[in-house]
Amino acid sequence: MGNTIGKIFRLTTFGESHGAAIGGVIDGMPSGVEIDIDAVQRQLDRRRPGQSSITTGRNEGDRVQVLSGLFEGRTTGTPIGFIIENSNQRSGDYDNMRDVFRPSHADYTYTEKYGIRDHRGGGRSSARETAARVVAGAMARQVLSHYGIGTYAYTSQVGDICVDKDYRRYNPTEIDNNIVRCPDAEAARQMIELIEQVKRDGDTIGGVITGVITGVPVGLGEPVFDKLHAALGAAMLSINAAKGFEYGLGFDFANRRGSEVADNFGIAADGSIKVETNYSGGIQGGISNGEDIYFRVAFKPVATLLRDVATVNSRGESVTLKARGRHDPCVLPRAVPIVEAMSAIVILDFLLQNRCTRL
Amino acid sequence: MGNTIGKIFRLTTFGESHGAAIGGVIDGMPSGVEIDIDAVQRQLDRRRPGQSSITTGRNEGDRVQVLSGLFEGRTTGTPIGFIIENSNQRSGDYDNMRDVFRPSHADYTYTEKYGIRDHRGGGRSSARETAARVVAGAMARQVLSHYGIGTYAYTSQVGDICVDKDYRRYNPTEIDNNIVRCPDAEAARQMIELIEQVKRDGDTIGGVITGVITGVPVGLGEPVFDKLHAALGAAMLSINAAKGFEYGLGFDFANRRGSEVADNFGIAADGSIKVETNYSGGIQGGISNGEDIYFRVAFKPVATLLRDVATVNSRGESVTLKARGRHDPCVLPRAVPIVEAMSAIVILDFLLQNRCTRL
Amino acid sequence: MGNTIGKIFRLTTFGESHGAAIGGVIDGMPSGVEIDIDAVQRQLDRRRPGQSSITTGRNEGDRVQVLSGLFEGRTTGTPIGFIIENSNQRSGDYDNMRDVFRPSHADYTYTEKYGIRDHRGGGRSSARETAARVVAGAMARQVLSHYGIGTYAYTSQVGDICVDKDYRRYNPTEIDNNIVRCPDAEAARQMIELIEQVKRDGDTIGGVITGVITGVPVGLGEPVFDKLHAALGAAMLSINAAKGFEYGLGFDFANRRGSEVADNFGIAADGSIKVETNYSGGIQGGISNGEDIYFRVAFKPVATLLRDVATVNSRGESVTLKARGRHDPCVLPRAVPIVEAMSAIVILDFLLQNRCTRL
Amino acid sequence: MGNTIGKIFRLTTFGESHGAAIGGVIDGMPSGVEIDIDAVQRQLDRRRPGQSSITTGRNEGDRVQVLSGLFEGRTTGTPIGFIIENSNQRSGDYDNMRDVFRPSHADYTYTEKYGIRDHRGGGRSSARETAARVVAGAMARQVLSHYGIGTYAYTSQVGDICVDKDYRRYNPTEIDNNIVRCPDAEAARQMIELIEQVKRDGDTIGGVITGVITGVPVGLGEPVFDKLHAALGAAMLSINAAKGFEYGLGFDFANRRGSEVADNFGIAADGSIKVETNYSGGIQGGISNGEDIYFRVAFKPVATLLRDVATVNSRGESVTLKARGRHDPCVLPRAVPIVEAMSAIVILDFLLQNRCTRL
Repeated sequence: MGNTIGKIFRLTTFGESHGAAIGGVIDGMPSGVEIDIDAVQRQLDRRRPGQSSITTGRNEGDRVQVLSGLFEGRTTGTPIGFIIENSNQRSGDYDNMRDVFRPSHADYTYTEKYGIRDHRGGGRSSARETAARVVAGAMARQVLSHYGIGTYAYTSQVGDICVDKDYRRYNPTEIDNNIVRCPDAEAARQMIELIEQVKRDGDTIGGVITGVITGVPVGLGEPVFDKLHAALGAAMLSINAAKGFEYGLGFDFANRRGSEVADNFGIAADGSIKVETNYSGGIQGGISNGEDIYFRVAFKPVATLLRDVATVNSRGESVTLKARGRHDPCVLPRAVPIVEAMSAIVILDFLLQNRCTRL
Repeated sequence: MGNTIGKIFRLTTFGESHGAAIGGVIDGMPSGVEIDIDAVQRQLDRRRPGQSSITTGRNEGDRVQVLSGLFEGRTTGTPIGFIIENSNQRSGDYDNMRDVFRPSHADYTYTEKYGIRDHRGGGRSSARETAARVVAGAMARQVLSHYGIGTYAYTSQVGDICVDKDYRRYNPTEIDNNIVRCPDAEAARQMIELIEQVKRDGDTIGGVITGVITGVPVGLGEPVFDKLHAALGAAMLSINAAKGFEYGLGFDFANRRGSEVADNFGIAADGSIKVETNYSGGIQGGISNGEDIYFRVAFKPVATLLRDVATVNSRGESVTLKARGRHDPCVLPRAVPIVEAMSAIVILDFLLQNRCTRL
Repeated sequence: MGNTIGKIFRLTTFGESHGAAIGGVIDGMPSGVEIDIDAVQRQLDRRRPGQSSITTGRNEGDRVQVLSGLFEGRTTGTPIGFIIENSNQRSGDYDNMRDVFRPSHADYTYTEKYGIRDHRGGGRSSARETAARVVAGAMARQVLSHYGIGTYAYTSQVGDICVDKDYRRYNPTEIDNNIVRCPDAEAARQMIELIEQVKRDGDTIGGVITGVITGVPVGLGEPVFDKLHAALGAAMLSINAAKGFEYGLGFDFANRRGSEVADNFGIAADGSIKVETNYSGGIQGGISNGEDIYFRVAFKPVATLLRDVATVNSRGESVTLKARGRHDPCVLPRAVPIVEAMSAIVILDFLLQNRCTRL
Repeated sequence: MGNTIGKIFRLTTFGESHGAAIGGVIDGMPSGVEIDIDAVQRQLDRRRPGQSSITTGRNEGDRVQVLSGLFEGRTTGTPIGFIIENSNQRSGDYDNMRDVFRPSHADYTYTEKYGIRDHRGGGRSSARETAARVVAGAMARQVLSHYGIGTYAYTSQVGDICVDKDYRRYNPTEIDNNIVRCPDAEAARQMIELIEQVKRDGDTIGGVITGVITGVPVGLGEPVFDKLHAALGAAMLSINAAKGFEYGLGFDFANRRGSEVADNFGIAADGSIKVETNYSGGIQGGISNGEDIYFRVAFKPVATLLRDVATVNSRGESVTLKARGRHDPCVLPRAVPIVEAMSAIVILDFLLQNRCTRL
């Protein structure tokens, strides 16, 4: 269970890292949307392994094939099924892991839960699954663009290298100027240097991604349990290696007084009502207020180290896991398009839900 | 929409702050559970206004009335409907807010979304709704106790007063020893002092609650979108004023190397497999691993200040909102039982879901 | 589980026949709808026991109390919680049924499923639950009336007394002209006579209700599993004692050739496209085509006889159940408003879903 | 929307008749089930076109390819994605239908709903989608066999040729002895003769399929809206061309007295409680009572005739649709495995749901 997200715009994914293919089904896609498959593929390319010196050496082509739901280039309102064939798998790399539980991975929990596990490349627990989300997210973004809604994300922290928390200081067009996807050129240089050092050490490093959603109309989000930020938070936390989520001032609110962080209303030149600040992060009472939505997602360092690791196997024996496989020293650069995709998926779902609000 | 949480164990809530009553319906409660209504009421009493000098002066009795689903003291497997009548409302306190948008409240977003708003006491956006969650959570905890699962939470930060992040240093039986619900007596003293100062200033203050879930068996949580921490995160973020969620090391992972924070496996004296550390927070790959689950929830300062506030009304006119009503200078003490309730609701739902995992 | 219906417009019900109250929560009600509570009560009155000589002698007032979701007479978009207190219960009538399984009732299945059962008046399995549906349905109808959609139903068969299958021969305003709710006066007379005879015999009798939905726009219903008639069918079959559902020609299609029953298209005077016949019953490919939707629901005779009945108890002993309680000799007259209510609930849900169809 | 069925065991399907492929995703499949793919393929073969002289001349191979969720022949508890490539399509056959609305098809309703339609072979409204259900159903049946639960169905009426309504008179092993899938050899002969005559006439004919589910334990089904028969009914009505559903005595109950059709309890030789008759059809109060579940599904004649048909196009012009394509004169023989599949899907879902019933 649990392989579907959304209420109206719904994505169901399937597939293991080393199976025949991964893929997904999008149900609830509005009809009449022209879909640019090349743009979808470009997002996949931003997520794919092997794209730079600081990502895994695996080199997967990751071509999306759309099987249904489009007719003459437009959505028909019927489900969009798609697959991405698995290739360049080196399942043999995982033979020694069949019965072994890698530390801080899902090997142990999957085995205990299901009594059986596809150990090759992490099976279903592999972040490879997120490729399907990127496909769906890329399509959702194309829908959102019709409503003037945009989503972007960037690497804002790697280890102890952080950029300013105020996203407005950075230009989203500069995110892809470097391979770590940080719009602050100097911080990016330092992050890359750090990741390369970590990689040389056979180690990995954590970080933070900042996400921003612009152009959201007032009114998205549903009380009580489906507050917009609760759904966004769940979507972000469902990304592999995510360990924390905050929006607006987030944890910094804990040490603030109400009088300091009230988003006071003012009256704009055109007479419209406008908040003067946006400490709330674009969401009040769980509902978007028309301001930018911004949030931060914490990622732990990748659990797979390129070192020999002492661990146990399913028979409770101590074993040493020899360093193998091809892994990322830092997930952040490749997680940026995933965060963007999840933003788009959530926002589109609530945009559609909100059509049902009034008589 | 959005007033239901859960897949198997499902809570639907209803009710406005100043309507006739609030309440809820629990569907999916297993049959045959002896329910101690007094214990439910005790949890409600921990949440109720007017319980101490640092909570709001409103004094609501908040008696739960169970209307269905129990027979001779036991659950029958049919839905448990319950209500809590609203009383001690002073709706007149809100007459001046009918058309006014209080800063950082949901007044504006609800009005824009629905075109109509029950302005009295915040209406549906009031934290009063959480009383229904406390009822359901208290019943869920009674079910969980049959499986050796416990949940507790405590105030771990108010303003700049923080306790150690390691929850194992504190004794859960000491949480209710003070009115701020912090198990560190000295920190509690300082927190209370700070809240009293803030209250005198007509201001409010934010903070952090730490939640802990013990005795969780291996295997709860569903890939991919319903990872245990994603659902827990959504549940916590759905609490009024919550702005951030992290589990395990959370945001601290960002500045850690994989080699430092791997939860290595060892072999216990009885030959069983055991992780030696618990940086992961009891969840790996979205599935519980049998260790304690621990997490932190950030709360913003209450938006309602006991000061005159300059704001606007729905006609776009500048108005001054005179200080009125009775509000909490800090939500943390009363949010502790809500965090516990949401933990129990989520864990019970996944415990039941997990029954469907294997042939 | 299973106490909620709908995707957008969702009704959750609770309550046992002899508990404190029954009730429900409507989530997804659009905001801004003026609700006429008296009109809701009138529908409840059409369903209530004791309304005529051919219904049960129980005389329940059945007053609906709305607890939330309305503000100054209009819906606010937040959940509508409501209760109907149970009164005039004579639980003592059921003391002898505590351990006894009445034939063709749910006594045995509930006991085996849950291990516990509220035996008083059928508990949760009582048709009393449908009062909550009538409340929700009456509100849904008030929403639908804004879109020109109407629902009505009538008794079309009792025992061997049938009216013509063509609903167009009858005037909906004549349905409530008689106590059996059949718009054919002569058939109604015979049905009433039959029911009175059956009642004198301490027996019960089955029948059929025809439902009609008018003014439905083209496009309601979702492929593949949520075809409009599949959802309507499920809703009708969920009514107590319902045993069959058909729409359009229904089972009569089995003996027809395609050439006989094709709904050919023609061109109306105003140039619009119009089907010339409506064998399909207003639904093609699971989606409404703008014609009247009509369907038939079969009801079995009430299982409770006013005779001594030989049966068994939970210890597997033969027992005789003495005739007691107050029951309907025929459910049809009181089921008419329930069928209407379920129609309205389903159609409103799909009307709202359909808002999400297009870009 | 609407392309998913089930709560725990969930099938989502996708695909158009003339797209690249159709397929589905099964979520909630229990882990550890050995899956016999050949047995799945055999069910697909029973549904496939071109299998006999009384089905369509289209000859689709319909090979299922499983892409995920199986590891070394067993289910892993992760989603099972599968596809069936479309081949032997003659999309050109449909060129003349691009703007034409075929009578009693979904052409008009899809166009009006979505504003766009894949006209080739009926697109998403094609019964080709049911191949995905047969795959999922065949897997569900393999799970059910571990619990001693079986499902079968057969053609019980074609036009005016009917078999006895009592399913116990027929041997399920004889169903596939003839191409119409009727276990009464003489009736089968007449049905085939009738279908061949109808085919020669360029016409089509309706009928009824009887479904039976054996070995169902007591307790499946959920009150109130998810009664077992309501879910079964919805599942059956969601099959293309289905127009009616009844279970137990169904519509025949309408003309019966309660005293005639009570399923009285008796005590079996081994002291267990047993109903003596099964008018109820194995379900009481929406919950299985341990007896055989039996039901009937009415199918209309296929709408596509092999004759020239006068109809209209989307511009409101009268056109003549020349007879083309390859269609079934009667859907019943190929619908038998679909009815069986839907039975298995529904029963498995409720079997899993029922695991959550008790403490």
